[in-house]
Amino acid sequence: MAPENPQLLTIGVDLGGTNLRIAAYSPDMGVLHSIALPTRLEAGPLAVVDDMCDAILELLALYSETHNLAGIGVGSPGPLELPAGRLHHPPNLPGWDGFHLLGEMEKRLRLPVAVESDANVAVLAEYTLGLGMELAVESLCMLTLGTGVGNGIILDGKLWHGATGMGGEAGHMTIEPAGPVCGCGNSGCLEVCASATALVSAAERMIGDGEAPGLAHLKANGAALTASDLAQAARQGDPDALEIYRQTGRALGIGLAGLINILNLPLYVVGGGVAKSWDLLSPSLFEELERRSYVYALTAPGRPASGGMPGGGTRVLPAKLGPEAGLLGACILPLHLSRATLTSPSPFITRSERV
Amino acid sequence: MAPENPQLLTIGVDLGGTNLRIAAYSPDMGVLHSIALPTRLEAGPLAVVDDMCDAILELLALYSETHNLAGIGVGSPGPLELPAGRLHHPPNLPGWDGFHLLGEMEKRLRLPVAVESDANVAVLAEYTLGLGMELAVESLCMLTLGTGVGNGIILDGKLWHGATGMGGEAGHMTIEPAGPVCGCGNSGCLEVCASATALVSAAERMIGDGEAPGLAHLKANGAALTASDLAQAARQGDPDALEIYRQTGRALGIGLAGLINILNLPLYVVGGGVAKSWDLLSPSLFEELERRSYVYALTAPGRPASGGMPGGGTRVLPAKLGPEAGLLGACILPLHLSRATLTSPSPFITRSERV
Repeated sequence: MAPENPQLLTIGVDLGGTNLRIAAYSPDMGVLHSIALPTRLEAGPLAVVDDMCDAILELLALYSETHNLAGIGVGSPGPLELPAGRLHHPPNLPGWDGFHLLGEMEKRLRLPVAVESDANVAVLAEYTLGLGMELAVESLCMLTLGTGVGNGIILDGKLWHGATGMGGEAGHMTIEPAGPVCGCGNSGCLEVCASATALVSAAERMIGDGEAPGLAHLKANGAALTASDLAQAARQGDPDALEIYRQTGRALGIGLAGLINILNLPLYVVGGGVAKSWDLLSPSLFEELERRSYVYALTAPGRPASGGMPGGGTRVLPAKLGPEAGLLGACILPLHLSRATLTSPSPFITRSERV
Repeated sequence: MAPENPQLLTIGVDLGGTNLRIAAYSPDMGVLHSIALPTRLEAGPLAVVDDMCDAILELLALYSETHNLAGIGVGSPGPLELPAGRLHHPPNLPGWDGFHLLGEMEKRLRLPVAVESDANVAVLAEYTLGLGMELAVESLCMLTLGTGVGNGIILDGKLWHGATGMGGEAGHMTIEPAGPVCGCGNSGCLEVCASATALVSAAERMIGDGEAPGLAHLKANGAALTASDLAQAARQGDPDALEIYRQTGRALGIGLAGLINILNLPLYVVGGGVAKSWDLLSPSLFEELERRSYVYALTAPGRPASGGMPGGGTRVLPAKLGPEAGLLGACILPLHLSRATLTSPSPFITRSERV
């Protein structure tokens, strides 16, 4: 028997190249239950969609008596074309080019599904539950430094999709026109200058060139180098590791300076594993911001044009939410979309026959 | 005696570092009358405001019997802080740092005044009366290549101001981190790589280095070199002039590739005097776009993700409006602002006692 005041429920899916996470979420209670599965890339996209949908239906069965489904949100590796919900050569999902992720999920579930890039759901989480909420800002830009550099932008309280859902690809803005080649075909992208992968590549190059004896020693002692290894070496004073972080902060500063000049938002958030080394990145990052963005120099907290800005001026901060941001963002995506279209009846706030 | 159905009137002001232009404008008839004056920089900002306000009142006196004033729009050199309407070290208005342009005009006129940066009024004109109208797009980004590189962005039908009115400063995004020093303090800004000034500087550098014999000959024959001289030399086959335009197109392509990746808009417009040499700029420009923006490569007209995009895909085009864009944009600014705030009663659609 259904209760008189059923609570809202969403299902969020964090689709990664390695792992799948599916969670049932209530706006009042947070994550109620979650399921983790491997992403069976070798079995092809239809099999992965089957796995996702089975887990979604399993969670719905648990909560259908007590909750009303507001929608299902999916964060997917990009590039993702919207509103079609179709992938285009996603580097982290080989073999998925042209795959209609949204259509295949809707076909199986016959329930309201929304898909977004993983970077977009991450910024949505930071906006709703992290620094965006804390500083009470309605616009922010987030860079997620991981294997690549993800980017999501919220303007006036709404995810900025651009014309085909591909807005917010600042990870592929050019930082060094003659820099290393990126998977996207460009050279010198932010992604090849400031991701975790870029940090390790820089170390490997130095070791290969016979420089960086401390890092060569570190590598000889263990398994493959990671960004965390380099951070630890830097904190222990290794000059080459320090220099790698300094260069990463510099590249990030050049990119953020451009974004600040273009967008003039009150908040820029840096997330992902590399952001845990904020102490190592931030000195050179802020040096570049001061020099390369007169908008930053005028609007940073306490500067002449910062008065009245929400959050107290242009803020550049490490993310508040950790690796859960992607899953949380997928969970709140249906709620965001229904709020963003309040003027017309939302397709999401309906109780489906399937639930 | 007032007519029964008075027409709407706006007054637009194009405030430049050298010239002032003030026009009376009717949405139905276009520019009704305009006044041109020198900008008396040596007399200080208050004297210039007096000149502007005298001309505005002169035009209002001509039309007050037959028209209803919808507002006064001003396009000003930036950086301009909004909503304060205060200038911050504007390079083209020396001595105006901290000047409250909006407040001083309102004090004198006691009429509704709106101020915007000159690049913002230019993009507004291109949106309303130029390519934006022609292609029926609601979002576009414009770069104006002149003495500097101006930038204005319209998102979903509204000027993007950012938090303090300083959004749309893509002229100062970094293209070459170790490039020439810009007036803003950065090095390698788009402005020092792709403005008319940058073209001439590049030629002067080559001449100074004893390269570019054709350009040295051109310079010896005439007065100071201009971007037009270089375009003419390039069209006559001068290899150094061709290379300068090729490098300018390349820098512009790097900047536009970043903007396309970040914003994913259907239209990017290049205006200003340098855009007249589109034939010289565009080959290297589009080469960079294809290489440095996978969003462009996926969404250009006819590409896999261009379907359904307004305007038929990501379009990058020379501006349709010429040097009048700034004045026209100032004239339509009050109408844009009242349309953009239709949900609340507009402060602009009132008939003032002063008129």
